[in-house]
Amino acid sequence: MFDFDFIEILGLVAAVLTTSAFAPQVYHTYKTKDVSGLSLPMYFIFLSGLLLWILYGVQTGSIAVIAANVVTSGLVIVLIVLKIKYGKTRS
Amino acid sequence: MFDFDFIEILGLVAAVLTTSAFAPQVYHTYKTKDVSGLSLPMYFIFLSGLLLWILYGVQTGSIAVIAANVVTSGLVIVLIVLKIKYGKTRS
Repeated sequence: MFDFDFIEILGLVAAVLTTSAFAPQVYHTYKTKDVSGLSLPMYFIFLSGLLLWILYGVQTGSIAVIAANVVTSGLVIVLIVLKIKYGKTRS
Repeated sequence: MFDFDFIEILGLVAAVLTTSAFAPQVYHTYKTKDVSGLSLPMYFIFLSGLLLWILYGVQTGSIAVIAANVVTSGLVIVLIVLKIKYGKTRS
């Protein structure tokens, strides 16, 4: 089912690049607790898309697609939790 | 090479959801011209990842992966252009 060849390594490099670009946002939000710019409905739409990508990755046997979207889902869940936790405090 | 079955439709729905979650950010930046929160190096890393995803999509014959990353690349290029154009003005 899974094929660890050049193409899959290419996909994993792509996954690392696109995911690592998203990580500083999460770190910044975690440190500053400034969630005013985050839209909760937007992140729920994003998360539902990521979950469908994981399903797509499983169906097509793509480790890169699964890995990228599992990691990004984790980061988005962190942002959603932070938004719910700190979203009520207006500064 | 391309197979328009249920799995590919699942991937395209995933693509629409994750891409549409990114679009409001681009629209917001375009309208406000506020690029202070955008990191140019981060967007270049993100763009290089997206280009590898497109290559991965072509190699694996995945229309969903190609479509999602072509559209997102276009949006990221808009953000990079806006950052370069308005980034020098500090408010």
